Amino acid sequence: MINVVAKHFVKEDKVAEFIEKAKKLVECTLKEEGCIKYGLFQDENNPAILTIIEEWENKSALDRHMKTEHFLSIVPVLGALDEKPKEINLYKKVV
Amino acid sequence: MINVVAKHFVKEDKVAEFIEKAKKLVECTLKEEGCIKYGLFQDENNPAILTIIEEWENKSALDRHMKTEHFLSIVPVLGALDEKPKEINLYKKVV
Repeated sequence: MINVVAKHFVKEDKVAEFIEKAKKLVECTLKEEGCIKYGLFQDENNPAILTIIEEWENKSALDRHMKTEHFLSIVPVLGALDEKPKEINLYKKVV
Repeated sequence: MINVVAKHFVKEDKVAEFIEKAKKLVECTLKEEGCIKYGLFQDENNPAILTIIEEWENKSALDRHMKTEHFLSIVPVLGALDEKPKEINLYKKVV
């Protein structure tokens, strides 16, 4: 199992557009084999912080995800709406 | 529902101690009413990044958690093992 947290710092005037585009990404990704969880979350105190929290069966499923058409077409668009580079962490569960 | 991501940057020589203490916190917290998920995760590329990812039924459950004996006794100990202040985000799910 592998977990990913991708934290985006979105330009203030681009938050609605980011959410709209990210919704499509979530919808397509949830249909992928090996995807256990994939959700979009908004910070309670700063609505411009938008984070995707993911859970994958294994690294292969995550690698396949990053080659899908929806990933390759939507993720660069999301990046262009960011104020600064996103923070991505890949995690293994300890307990 | 409320989600929390608490990202700790732990002193390199304190990683094992952090994990040991955090395991106890996880064990106690999972028994709390209103706790849906509560796990400790280690970054695949930097083992000194240790993150607690949480899911709570509501804000009241999270508030109660922060008053429990295990929270009040263990969280400060974890903080003392950190290299720099932890990053905490409270999230609501968008999709």
